[in-house]
Amino acid sequence: MNSEEFRQHGYQVIDWIADYMENVEEYPVLSRVKPGDVRAGLPAAAPEEGEPFERILKDVDEIIMPGVTHWQSPNFFGYFPGNTSGPSILGELLSAGLGVQGMMWVTSPACTELETHVLDWLAEMVGLPEKFKSTATGGGVIQATASSGSLVAAVAAREQATGGRSNEAGVSDGLTAYTSAEAHSSIEKAVRIAGIGSANLRKIETDETFAMRPAALAQAIRDDKVAGRTPVLVCATVGTTSSTAIDPVPEIGRICAEHGVWLHVDAAMAGTAALCPEFRFLHEGLEFADSYLFNPHKWMLTNVDCSAFYVADRRKLTAAMSVVPEYLRNVASESGEVIDYRDWQVELGRRFRSLKLWFVIRSYGVKALREIVRGHVAMAQEFAAWVEDDPDFEVAAPVLLSLVCFRHRGGDEVNQEIMDRVNEAGRMFMTHTKLDGKLTLRLSIGQETTGRKHVERAWETIRKAAGAIA
Amino acid sequence: MNSEEFRQHGYQVIDWIADYMENVEEYPVLSRVKPGDVRAGLPAAAPEEGEPFERILKDVDEIIMPGVTHWQSPNFFGYFPGNTSGPSILGELLSAGLGVQGMMWVTSPACTELETHVLDWLAEMVGLPEKFKSTATGGGVIQATASSGSLVAAVAAREQATGGRSNEAGVSDGLTAYTSAEAHSSIEKAVRIAGIGSANLRKIETDETFAMRPAALAQAIRDDKVAGRTPVLVCATVGTTSSTAIDPVPEIGRICAEHGVWLHVDAAMAGTAALCPEFRFLHEGLEFADSYLFNPHKWMLTNVDCSAFYVADRRKLTAAMSVVPEYLRNVASESGEVIDYRDWQVELGRRFRSLKLWFVIRSYGVKALREIVRGHVAMAQEFAAWVEDDPDFEVAAPVLLSLVCFRHRGGDEVNQEIMDRVNEAGRMFMTHTKLDGKLTLRLSIGQETTGRKHVERAWETIRKAAGAIA
Repeated sequence: MNSEEFRQHGYQVIDWIADYMENVEEYPVLSRVKPGDVRAGLPAAAPEEGEPFERILKDVDEIIMPGVTHWQSPNFFGYFPGNTSGPSILGELLSAGLGVQGMMWVTSPACTELETHVLDWLAEMVGLPEKFKSTATGGGVIQATASSGSLVAAVAAREQATGGRSNEAGVSDGLTAYTSAEAHSSIEKAVRIAGIGSANLRKIETDETFAMRPAALAQAIRDDKVAGRTPVLVCATVGTTSSTAIDPVPEIGRICAEHGVWLHVDAAMAGTAALCPEFRFLHEGLEFADSYLFNPHKWMLTNVDCSAFYVADRRKLTAAMSVVPEYLRNVASESGEVIDYRDWQVELGRRFRSLKLWFVIRSYGVKALREIVRGHVAMAQEFAAWVEDDPDFEVAAPVLLSLVCFRHRGGDEVNQEIMDRVNEAGRMFMTHTKLDGKLTLRLSIGQETTGRKHVERAWETIRKAAGAIA
Repeated sequence: MNSEEFRQHGYQVIDWIADYMENVEEYPVLSRVKPGDVRAGLPAAAPEEGEPFERILKDVDEIIMPGVTHWQSPNFFGYFPGNTSGPSILGELLSAGLGVQGMMWVTSPACTELETHVLDWLAEMVGLPEKFKSTATGGGVIQATASSGSLVAAVAAREQATGGRSNEAGVSDGLTAYTSAEAHSSIEKAVRIAGIGSANLRKIETDETFAMRPAALAQAIRDDKVAGRTPVLVCATVGTTSSTAIDPVPEIGRICAEHGVWLHVDAAMAGTAALCPEFRFLHEGLEFADSYLFNPHKWMLTNVDCSAFYVADRRKLTAAMSVVPEYLRNVASESGEVIDYRDWQVELGRRFRSLKLWFVIRSYGVKALREIVRGHVAMAQEFAAWVEDDPDFEVAAPVLLSLVCFRHRGGDEVNQEIMDRVNEAGRMFMTHTKLDGKLTLRLSIGQETTGRKHVERAWETIRKAAGAIA
């Protein structure tokens, strides 16, 4: 494909996406294919000769699209959002077109410096403590996902607690980590990968709002210390996946400070809300945190992957993550004047991901991003009010932001049936969790194009499904 | 940005990239900015109001481009290539436009099934043993980078050796891993992250071709066993980063089989060459491997990130990597009929990365991809012959594929000076390594647009720089 062909096919793909933006509501939100359907449409072997681009695009329409679940639909209320936007798509496109590999400053200084700079912007935008900026002792880096951030935090925490001995001699018995019983599974996964072990992750009990009980945390740390163990990491969650519960970071932070334990704060979904002064309370207590993460790729219109990870003391992070062979040595790195992001993450190679974040922030401006958050939160509050007004339903957790956890009073089977019917019908998509042991429906609002009419229709669809069962 | 604005600005970015493809040779290959130059051009804070897209594109030209090192230049001979292509860029664009998050089959069946299918194609294209296909006991998955693959292999190996106890109880003393002294730094990084520890990674000595000595490996494993340690992982390299040395996988594999140790084969760069029957020898011995990786994002025209990771027994991988919370449970996953790639990688979230690989394979066809590899290898062989014919220079390692390791006979300082002069002049870019303790220049050929004239000019440039010093 030469540059002229690229131009022509590039326009085609741009048009395809623009059309998709216009028509996304016409698809059933949840794909209806059965396991194996997509593969059945694909030839058994790769083509020996190249094929015309038109044929590939035709297969996208005919084979791929039926197998797509439409995360960008205004009727997507499942999980948490993974929203994208025009500027983000074009930033990703430019990144692919430049094709730079930003493993070190020298391999494309702009890739590193734009990332550092835009993450400083973002720190200011959401009101992080000064120490998390590159202009102080810390700095930000784009990780692929919150799981990647949890793992990096676990390793840095492990090395801090063992004085670097784990990296050298391997993990020894007796390291412990702490998170709430409602924390994301990625914390347990990180603790496993880092060699600490699930059995040494204390899942601290939560209160009636599903937030960690600080007293229980303090007790668990004390018990472990008395037993001769080494507390390494506390992971607090600001906005849990099940219900956006908010752990009390100030109290947790004081406990971590007292015991010298690394505090990682995972605000993957909720962090975006801190763009708004009225939600800035989400970041209370971050002065105690050693690392912090939120995902612009969830609620800030930047397509996956873009997790903003911040560290308070970058030297602790790079001490834990750096391994430098001869073939990567260079004058800039050895000067100490530059950041080499290979030492801030698991991966060596990296894309120019800050372009899409920069495009989004500049195209929208901070004010518009705030308004989008406010709109989603207002719609969630309104939806929760409708649920509360309906005697057949109940709200199952405090509605702090844009997620409503609710359930029909008829029990687990009825709720499962409501969800299945609604999702199979295809006009909307929602998912579930368990709270207090009960199956709970989740309506998560986070698409830029989701308006009041979509939320109204969702509620109508849910009530009708409930009515049809009862 | 509405869909009409997206269309208009999308065409602009497509045009920008097409122009860049045409003009990439006009830029100095290595960016000339000094630390801080890029940031100095950026405003201190994010804009409160949105900005017109034209202003952003103008800043790309004026602020970003001077800070770009041009990996897509035909005169880029540094590191290993990270080549891209029109079809790959458009696949990445479509992925961003669809904005699906493929953490599980159900969250977009096509994202999972296309990936599984195309990686089966790819296994056939490069002649992997049948067991690595999804239709047998194994299967492929796209990891972000080779480092990610090394880490996943290390964790799976650790769990195999400990019967799953490390994930549960944490790593205990006495686990050991093995790789050659020439292996990539990502192996040591993976061993550290997984809690095994650098001191327990045996860096096995290499022979005169910089390939691992199997006898030394066997001895190290025996010694560790006698000392009561548990050998967990051997990582063999097919095409080392320094010199594309090829570890003798058949002998290494037999040793692993004898001792029941997980064998991971890292062919990050070289694997692409196995598209050609005459280089299929690279994959000899893979019948002994438990996992295998190569990077289409290096030499197969698919932009970063796209590492093809294969496992022989997928149950061992998912047993090591799976943690499933309630909010991710679904009927399809529990049926056992589908793959959920969240359990094949560190990250939970994932992009629709197989689109770009599919676009590349279909647009080029396998035959054309083979010819590109052959062209690069032929040019490297010719370059090596020129070096050999010059009494001032010597070839420093066998030239097996598309990398030439060579040096001026004047010693380290002269070679450093040659490299610095050449790179500063900007018409080409190359990097270095150390072999036998001596600074060694590396000319790595891997851009689709690199032709004989570029390689000829590179040699002329290097000789002139040498002449100017002497």
